[in-house]
Amino acid sequence: MTNYTTEIKTSSFVPPSDSRQRVSQFLRNLQDQICQKLEAVDGEGTFQEDAWEREEGGGGRSRVMKAGKVFEQGGVGFSEVWGKDLPPSILVQRPEAAGHSFYAMGTSMVLHPRSPYIPTVHLNYRYFEAGPVWWFGGGVDLTPYYPFAEDAAHFHQTMKRACDQHHPEYYPTFKRWCDEYFYLKHRQETRGVGGIFFDYQDGRGTLYHGPNSNGQAAAYSNALGEIEPRNWEQLFAFVQDCGNSFLPAYLPIVERRQGMEYGDRQRQFQLYRRGRYVEFNLIYDRGTIFGLQTNGRTESILMSLPPMVRWEYSYQPEPNTPEAELYERFLKPQDWASWSPDVQ
Amino acid sequence: MTNYTTEIKTSSFVPPSDSRQRVSQFLRNLQDQICQKLEAVDGEGTFQEDAWEREEGGGGRSRVMKAGKVFEQGGVGFSEVWGKDLPPSILVQRPEAAGHSFYAMGTSMVLHPRSPYIPTVHLNYRYFEAGPVWWFGGGVDLTPYYPFAEDAAHFHQTMKRACDQHHPEYYPTFKRWCDEYFYLKHRQETRGVGGIFFDYQDGRGTLYHGPNSNGQAAAYSNALGEIEPRNWEQLFAFVQDCGNSFLPAYLPIVERRQGMEYGDRQRQFQLYRRGRYVEFNLIYDRGTIFGLQTNGRTESILMSLPPMVRWEYSYQPEPNTPEAELYERFLKPQDWASWSPDVQ
Repeated sequence: MTNYTTEIKTSSFVPPSDSRQRVSQFLRNLQDQICQKLEAVDGEGTFQEDAWEREEGGGGRSRVMKAGKVFEQGGVGFSEVWGKDLPPSILVQRPEAAGHSFYAMGTSMVLHPRSPYIPTVHLNYRYFEAGPVWWFGGGVDLTPYYPFAEDAAHFHQTMKRACDQHHPEYYPTFKRWCDEYFYLKHRQETRGVGGIFFDYQDGRGTLYHGPNSNGQAAAYSNALGEIEPRNWEQLFAFVQDCGNSFLPAYLPIVERRQGMEYGDRQRQFQLYRRGRYVEFNLIYDRGTIFGLQTNGRTESILMSLPPMVRWEYSYQPEPNTPEAELYERFLKPQDWASWSPDVQ
Repeated sequence: MTNYTTEIKTSSFVPPSDSRQRVSQFLRNLQDQICQKLEAVDGEGTFQEDAWEREEGGGGRSRVMKAGKVFEQGGVGFSEVWGKDLPPSILVQRPEAAGHSFYAMGTSMVLHPRSPYIPTVHLNYRYFEAGPVWWFGGGVDLTPYYPFAEDAAHFHQTMKRACDQHHPEYYPTFKRWCDEYFYLKHRQETRGVGGIFFDYQDGRGTLYHGPNSNGQAAAYSNALGEIEPRNWEQLFAFVQDCGNSFLPAYLPIVERRQGMEYGDRQRQFQLYRRGRYVEFNLIYDRGTIFGLQTNGRTESILMSLPPMVRWEYSYQPEPNTPEAELYERFLKPQDWASWSPDVQ
């Protein structure tokens, strides 16, 4: 990192001189806290760390739990990379970065629980600096296999509280963006029940920067908010609160579901639905594509893939089953934050 | 098909007036013959057919064998589609087709055998007409899980014989193109031992049209042949011989390997290696991307995916094992056609 030359030039939105150190420290701590707490919840599995370096600049630490009691596989990675040019997929959105060296870091996590009643969950927070521009991105989203409205509601309500402390437009905008981003166009399904997603947050007041390059359409995109400018400190505080909200958003769901018994039918459906996770990550995911385009560490990029997966030609759930309810209600955008047990 | 207006304008390379009917008949017959023979070889599994229509024009017939005795899953599809515009990924290679309606058909097959000793195999032959241009594409490639040089050699020698009957430059060019195309850049591995692959064959004498849009590099691409022009009939005869060579190239391998016993170690390695098939098809494959971009039938496009797959973070084969030999020798381009038992 010491060889990297700072080139931030925009005067009104300048990050502090120690921006990278502070974000890096936060993202490493987030990785540490999540791993510690997940090990405690699992009770058996432990994370094994691989530290790695990237030839073109930077490196990271990948931590994987294999064959835990609760988590069949979990990966939590931190990486910090720099180089000469950002890939074309990002320069389209940030043309000001063209011709400048870049600095990027992030913490990513995907958990694949053993029980089909515990949802898969994904988290990613990241920070970029490139010439005159910098931005934060990230989010968290939940992918249940079986439909429990209270789980989806708890997850969304927790993330909404974190967002609302910083700006009332954040949750509604980033919730919709999440539904749009984690969408499998070829299946016409959301990946799960969503959460929040944002990218290119540089304080300039435009919250929404989609749809992505795969052309997922957002009929509502024009209605999404423009807000007053935010400075670097305000954005960093927002991202910290989002990151710190993950454990309270997810762990109560794990605790609620881990004792429930399941059989082969639930297991087979889980393995089948995991195929959608693979399809999304390899066909659409911006983080995966960025990683592969920048010659990232393949094993770390693909540690999000499930340990065991099944495809079945032309599968359709039986009508009036929990599996059918997942498709009909949970794989379409819903206002989960407003859900309550009384008005389901 | 009757509503589609012919717009072939190039005078010296005009296809016959019944070009679509003839190619269509050949590709349907190829599907029929392959399915019949595979059912006979399997002895238990049968193909179930789904006929489907595409809203924008065209349709197909997808045939899937699930849970056969030899084939854990097999999909053989025929499709015939037409529409207003070819997707951008193809127009880059065929700018003459821009603004013209297109007609495309193909037969595709992927077989996932139960035994880890029998290779997965893929076949695809296709034909396009769009405004002033038409072309043939396709090929066949073999993906073994365990390293048997005689199987790779038999497969390549059979395809070389078919190619050599039509032009001495075909096999060397299309064998190299196959190695280049079925390459997982992020793993620095070929998908398997290859076979032949070609695209954009319109008789104009340029055999090689790569590397593809994913930037798989071909250091040898400049050395690949320019030949004298070929007419439509010559190309169609070549494609027919390639298609008809599939069964003699593959079935002797199945017969040789199907009696061999295997255990959990071999099965686990097979499931793991099938993950590479998924990665290739979803990240790189031109047919998959074309299908998804043209709003194709998702279940038919993705019936190439294996029925059961495993990912394992940071797996490495033990040195001096058959698994290690696969990586060291079989996942790198080799001159299999020249292999003989005496000089291995």
